[in-house]
Formats: sequence, C-alpha cells, structure tokens
Amino acid sequence: MNVLIVYAHPEPRSLNGALRDFAVEHLEAAGHAVQVTDLYAMNWKAAFDANDVTDRAPDARFDPALDSKHAFETGTQRDDIAREQDKLKWADAVILQFPLWWFSMPAIMKGWVERVYAYGFAYGVGVHSDRHWGDRYGEGSFAGKRAMVIVTTGGWESHYSARGINGPIDDVLFPIQHGILYYPGFDVLPPFVIYRTGRMDDVRFDETRAALGKRLDALWTAQPIPFRRQNAGDYEIPALTLKTEIAPEKVGFAAHLAHGQ
Amino acid sequence: MNVLIVYAHPEPRSLNGALRDFAVEHLEAAGHAVQVTDLYAMNWKAAFDANDVTDRAPDARFDPALDSKHAFETGTQRDDIAREQDKLKWADAVILQFPLWWFSMPAIMKGWVERVYAYGFAYGVGVHSDRHWGDRYGEGSFAGKRAMVIVTTGGWESHYSARGINGPIDDVLFPIQHGILYYPGFDVLPPFVIYRTGRMDDVRFDETRAALGKRLDALWTAQPIPFRRQNAGDYEIPALTLKTEIAPEKVGFAAHLAHGQ
Repeated sequence: MNVLIVYAHPEPRSLNGALRDFAVEHLEAAGHAVQVTDLYAMNWKAAFDANDVTDRAPDARFDPALDSKHAFETGTQRDDIAREQDKLKWADAVILQFPLWWFSMPAIMKGWVERVYAYGFAYGVGVHSDRHWGDRYGEGSFAGKRAMVIVTTGGWESHYSARGINGPIDDVLFPIQHGILYYPGFDVLPPFVIYRTGRMDDVRFDETRAALGKRLDALWTAQPIPFRRQNAGDYEIPALTLKTEIAPEKVGFAAHLAHGQ
Repeated sequence: MNVLIVYAHPEPRSLNGALRDFAVEHLEAAGHAVQVTDLYAMNWKAAFDANDVTDRAPDARFDPALDSKHAFETGTQRDDIAREQDKLKWADAVILQFPLWWFSMPAIMKGWVERVYAYGFAYGVGVHSDRHWGDRYGEGSFAGKRAMVIVTTGGWESHYSARGINGPIDDVLFPIQHGILYYPGFDVLPPFVIYRTGRMDDVRFDETRAALGKRLDALWTAQPIPFRRQNAGDYEIPALTLKTEIAPEKVGFAAHLAHGQ
C-alpha cells in the first residue's frame, strides 16, 4: 500500500523527527511505499493567496474559493500545490504528524491544508439536492483512503482528559479529524498521541516506538472513528442538523459519533 | 482605549476587508486609538523556525519552546515578532478577525500566534506549586485586557448549531477563545460571527455593520465568556482536572464554563 506522511516540525533532531524516521522504516520494512511531505524542509509556502493562481489578471479581486476552483479546473495551480494533490491521489493512507501548538496543527501544516485542498478537489464536490448535500463527511475525493493523526503534546494526559482543562483530546482534534480528514472522505483512525514530551527517556521512547509500530501495522485493519455520514439519513438537509430522533439527548462534537460501533 | 485588530484576509475588497475598515472607523470615531496588524498586507512570515532566533549557533538543535524563551529573554527575537509584542502590550483590547478556513483561523494568523506568543510572554509565566500551576487560564501577561473574535463562515448558522454537523460554533472556536486568548489572560467576549457569507446583499451588509458597531460599543462593558480560572479552586493541581464536586455531570469543553454567570 501507499502511505503519505505529511510532517511538520522545524528540527529533524527532535522526538517528532525520530518518530517520523521510525514510521518510514517500519512501513517500508512491511513492504509499503512511503512518501514524506516534510513541510519545514521544503520551506512550504503557508499563506494561501492570489499568487497560488498562475493565470489571473493582477488587479482582479481574489476570491479564495472561486479562484481555487478556477485554478484547479484549468490546471493553473502552482506546481507545489499540484504535486501535493498528486501525492494525495497516490496514497492509500495519509498520516498527519505534528506537535500540538496552541491546540491545533502548526501554521505551516494548516497552510498545506488550505492550499492543497482545492475547491473541486477536497470541497465543492458532488451534487446538492434535498437528499444529498455535496460529497462530504464520509464521501468525497478521498473516500476509501484512511487517515491518522500522530501528535505530540507538552501537556499531560490528564490535562486532555474528559474533565481536563485543555479539553478532551478527541474534542481538541475534532476540527482536524472530522473537519479536515472526514469531510473530504477519509476513514479516520483513532489518533496516536504522545503526551508530556518533556519527560521522554530511553525506556519511554522505546515503548512509544513499539506502540506506534503496532498502530502502523493496524493501519489497514483498525476500526475508524464512527463519525456519522452526512447523506446517509441521520441529518436534515440542508440544515445539516441531526434529526430529532438521532441521539436526542446529545449536543456538541460527540453527537456526531454513531453509537454501538 | 487602545485597540489592536489582528486581521487575516488576502483580499482587501472582501467582506472581511469592508468590516475591518468599518471597525477601524467606528472605533476611532468613538475616540479610541486603533492599530491594525494586516497579516497578508505585511507578508507575515507564518512558519515559526530557527530563523526567528537571531543569535543562535547555526548547527545547534532548535527547540521551539526553549529557543523562544532564550530569544525573548535576551532581546534577540526577530524585529517583526518584537513589534507585535509591543502592540499587544499597548492594547487594552485585541480583536482577531478572520474567515473560518477548515474550522480554524487561516495559517497566516496561526503563525502570528506561534511566533508572537513567546515563552515567558504568553506561556511559561508564573510559579508552579501545588496550589498554582503557572499564570494561565485567567491569569498571565494579558490579564486585564479584553479580546474578541470576528469570524465569517461560508456555512449556515444551522450547520454550526448545537446539533449541526460542523459542531457548535462555541466548540469550534474553543481552541482559539479558551486556548489562545483565555490561556494568556485575556477576558474573552462572545464572538461576532457572520454566517453564510455567499448570501450577503446590501440590506444584510447594513444590518451586519450595525450589529458589529453595537458590539464594538460594548467592548468595555460586555460580560466575558465565564471560563473557569485555573488557579481559583475549581481544578486539581497539577492534574488540572475539574474537582469531582465541580459540575460533576459535565465533560468536554462546556464543563469549563462557570454556571450562573
């Protein structure tokens, strides 16, 4: 299988760098093909702007969605964007690996999402009717592919627990796992989280690597997070609210997980 | 009073651009001093990396937290970072204005947070003991200042409602409002959200401007979101979980809001 690792850390001699190297070796040893998008090493352009559309009139008003659509449809995107889209098409599984900075992915990775996720590619796909509101949340260009987040935090596991002050890690990651990965169609596996990275010693590093190896071995067989499919009957269309009979006692992110799976 | 507007949109002739101009005029007409950090116009460097520390050995391992601390303490940060820190010190209120892209702020603004929020300035402040775990979540360098988010979305209000598929807007914004603003001490006002921006006409634009004007007039008097203070007795230290007697039935982001306020 083909695995794309999108990786964002400014220092290769870091815990993230070591785990990235381990993941590549482990996957290749198992016979998989691996590509790494090393955003810092590539000096990835983070800001999505008019320079990302190569054939526009310089004084025309820039519309992020419509210009993205035009550039994607007409093959006039910048090359760096098109190359990443090709990697996404090639991949059977995509891993996003990053340190949690201010409760989200680093800016350079957010900029990868904003620029590579073109209109017509990752959103704005599919018909809109009274029974189907675009191919999204369980359908879309990346349907059939798997995705997983590998994330490190300085904070402790308890700080990210159900009643921890930072919020539960599943909720902190919901905008990424549900919003960035499930939206364009990925099946999203539970995240691999390494907490309290300031307290990493050799024993714990060995344990962490072993645990990550098991998760990578299960990349094709693990049960995805059971997010609800938008167009499969649980939601009113076009309000996109859960129907009254679906988990009637629930609100918030957790309501978008199906029971009993 | 002094107001800093940190603004991220690539096109000045946009709804965001028009609302930014309106906010500046409205606040100045009320006698306030306003500075705007226009991230796209400044070509703001989004990626936090070793180039942000001006006096380090080129082959030294880069540690994002410790290098940030060193540069802040020794005055060897890049000038663009120091200038933004000066603006934050000057401001009585800070407004973050942006379009919601992939359920968070644009990469260029995330990079403003990562680079300007130095260790020793926005985090890593205050003593750690068994009763006080750093000056954060209600204390810190920005205590006494107010902050507010102005955000536009293409999605409909129902999509961001309590049972909407994108998740409730308060939860989508929690990593920003609680994690980026409340953490270093800001009192955070409820956000000003403009939904379904594709359906903006002159009448609705006038209504939106009027509503924003009222919110700006209330910048000094509105009740902040009642996030719980970390060191005021609601949390176990250092686990930073809510004590068992505090909102015992609650988990997730909403548990960190105090009742009855």
